[in-house]
Amino acid sequence: IKSKLPYVTHHIFSEMSALATRYNAINLSQGFPNFEPSQELLDLVGICLNDKSMPLVNQYAPIAGLPFLREKIAEKVHSSYGIEVDWDKEVTITVGATEGISATISAFVWPGEEVILIEPCYDSYKPAVDTVGGKTVIYTMKSPDFKIDWDEFAKLITAKTRMICISTPNNPTGTIMQEEDMLKLSQLVHGTDIIIMSDEVYEHMVFDGKTHESPLKYDALRERTVSVFSFGKTYHITGWKVGYCIAAPELTVEIRKVHQNSVFSVSHPLQKALAKYMDISDDHLKLPEFYQKKRDLFSEAVKGSRFKLLPCAGSYFQLFDYSDISNENDYDFCVRLIQEHGVAAIPVSRLYTDFKDDHLIRLCFAKTDETLLKAAALLKEV
Amino acid sequence: IKSKLPYVTHHIFSEMSALATRYNAINLSQGFPNFEPSQELLDLVGICLNDKSMPLVNQYAPIAGLPFLREKIAEKVHSSYGIEVDWDKEVTITVGATEGISATISAFVWPGEEVILIEPCYDSYKPAVDTVGGKTVIYTMKSPDFKIDWDEFAKLITAKTRMICISTPNNPTGTIMQEEDMLKLSQLVHGTDIIIMSDEVYEHMVFDGKTHESPLKYDALRERTVSVFSFGKTYHITGWKVGYCIAAPELTVEIRKVHQNSVFSVSHPLQKALAKYMDISDDHLKLPEFYQKKRDLFSEAVKGSRFKLLPCAGSYFQLFDYSDISNENDYDFCVRLIQEHGVAAIPVSRLYTDFKDDHLIRLCFAKTDETLLKAAALLKEV
Ligand SMILES: CSCCC(=O)C(=O)O
Ligand SMILES: CSCCC(=O)C(=O)O
Repeated sequence: IKSKLPYVTHHIFSEMSALATRYNAINLSQGFPNFEPSQELLDLVGICLNDKSMPLVNQYAPIAGLPFLREKIAEKVHSSYGIEVDWDKEVTITVGATEGISATISAFVWPGEEVILIEPCYDSYKPAVDTVGGKTVIYTMKSPDFKIDWDEFAKLITAKTRMICISTPNNPTGTIMQEEDMLKLSQLVHGTDIIIMSDEVYEHMVFDGKTHESPLKYDALRERTVSVFSFGKTYHITGWKVGYCIAAPELTVEIRKVHQNSVFSVSHPLQKALAKYMDISDDHLKLPEFYQKKRDLFSEAVKGSRFKLLPCAGSYFQLFDYSDISNENDYDFCVRLIQEHGVAAIPVSRLYTDFKDDHLIRLCFAKTDETLLKAAALLKEV
Repeated sequence: IKSKLPYVTHHIFSEMSALATRYNAINLSQGFPNFEPSQELLDLVGICLNDKSMPLVNQYAPIAGLPFLREKIAEKVHSSYGIEVDWDKEVTITVGATEGISATISAFVWPGEEVILIEPCYDSYKPAVDTVGGKTVIYTMKSPDFKIDWDEFAKLITAKTRMICISTPNNPTGTIMQEEDMLKLSQLVHGTDIIIMSDEVYEHMVFDGKTHESPLKYDALRERTVSVFSFGKTYHITGWKVGYCIAAPELTVEIRKVHQNSVFSVSHPLQKALAKYMDISDDHLKLPEFYQKKRDLFSEAVKGSRFKLLPCAGSYFQLFDYSDISNENDYDFCVRLIQEHGVAAIPVSRLYTDFKDDHLIRLCFAKTDETLLKAAALLKEV
């Protein structure tokens, strides 16, 4: 069998999580919280599953998602970013953000067309492009500030460029795109038919008083952008696999065609519980402070270690530079960190197609304070 | 925007369901039960969500699915069909059967390669092929017996044939494939590298003492078949979106690569509840009788109507021939049936790419006896 994805051999996140379990290490590798979601949200699932006034809650949800949930999303997006969103024509509930990303790529990228990825980035973008026969073109952000030089970037655009994938706040770098980036991007795509896939799953984890810049806020990008969001990240339920994407009606129509024929719809009871929860909760407003405190607690606690911490403006990931400690490649370093020091991290090279190794590792601080303090104590010993 | 799926304009199932709601008609169109799943299964979801002894049940499940659920599936398949299945290397939990179908097609079909579909069939196969740039080649089964003439079928195979999609019990025809079909298919694909995508979501709805013939039972097919199954159909939870596929390890590796990058994993709490439920339930053993009774109740109750009922050997669908009643096309007939007679059905022409119209409509009998009797009374008035 000829593999479309010969390079997808390991899933680096699962691999490091598995090693963490095996060596009983503190797992700061794969990005997920080790604390509980709201009890109220959990209770709502039971209530919805048994709601005999809505007898079909265990049967197919509508393809695009529950209307009430989509209304709540449109309201939240409006209050967060001041953008008008048509819940019916522009919001689609997806199987986590991963499905939103994949459906967007599948809907618009034809065999032979080019998609520009900005590396390092989440590892599902390239396989999604390769699965439909597209070609990836890579722009590499440079450590340690991971800024995008838009003049350099512009050179990658060709007549075959169909899509640009961006991500802010960025996984794994923790950098955020600013107004200036959005304006440059607007100029670049103006007059083309390039579509932007914008991964914004960490939208509520932006720190130090900064704001999340969604391309949806920019007129020139609004019409061509598919913004992808995650309930998993916002409500500490990565395992539920519910997310959504927002895009102009014309784009949404095509995304839903792929969604309909690749998954059909998303768990009806989980959607219903989320809709009821969004109606009563303002949890997302507390997230920036919640995660900023964790970032600060963690970076304070590792002070005095031989790692250099890179700035983290957003996301729930902190990059550590270990070049003062070792010359090993980052994968070997991570394996040894688990085995000898009891902490699991992600080798950042695995988030570049060419395995570029700057001696950086990524640690997830979506963990209880207790876990972060324990991990910090171990990291100071390295 | 150039659409990859220009013909996906309406979803016929959602469209007829929506019309049914609008005209307050009895909805026998879209295939889903209008009765409740087991209360024990519903209760298990609440228990799992709150299981503090498994603190990460709300976070990512493993890519391939929960080990315990996959073990239970392998046991069930063994006891149902006498097939040895390696739960770890051959079973993958998917977002309903639809994702299993789509991931199989996406993993193996390259741009320009051919996939043979046997029509009429479920409407997601062709879009899944077109999304990755494949070409569909159509074999048409002929009403009223919908048998496959394998000599005719063989003429469709070319050097470019990558996959054959089969479905038994068949949606919408209610026919089943027999040992003879499996042997003919085995001969046909012997020595080629053709993969079989086998949609077996109605595996437990086979009537009159017949058995379900899974290609997995046939040595010559086992190595090249991906069999796709549905918890939604078996446990009356179509809205949960959990299914699974079974395939040889070599094939499974590739399917999981696509699954990982298109959805990542399936709802963790729902998988856990299903695993616990499979451990205590033998509901699937009761399904053939349960649905056979419904088929018989319904066909008895419509006796004396002007419809001709076609034989139904399996699935939860019954075909009605209305040619003694009207010359309308089946779509118009279905709309009128909803508006004037209060019963919603599916026009079978919509499950052929060329809209072949034999004056057949499909009615779903996964409904309470009361609903079936009411619908039958209305159908007798037509
Ligand atoms: C879906 S697996 C990993 C979760 C994540 O987004 C990450 O760790 O980068
Ligand atoms: C997923 S929509 C319809 C359900 C079904 O399988 C059918 O009605 O044929």
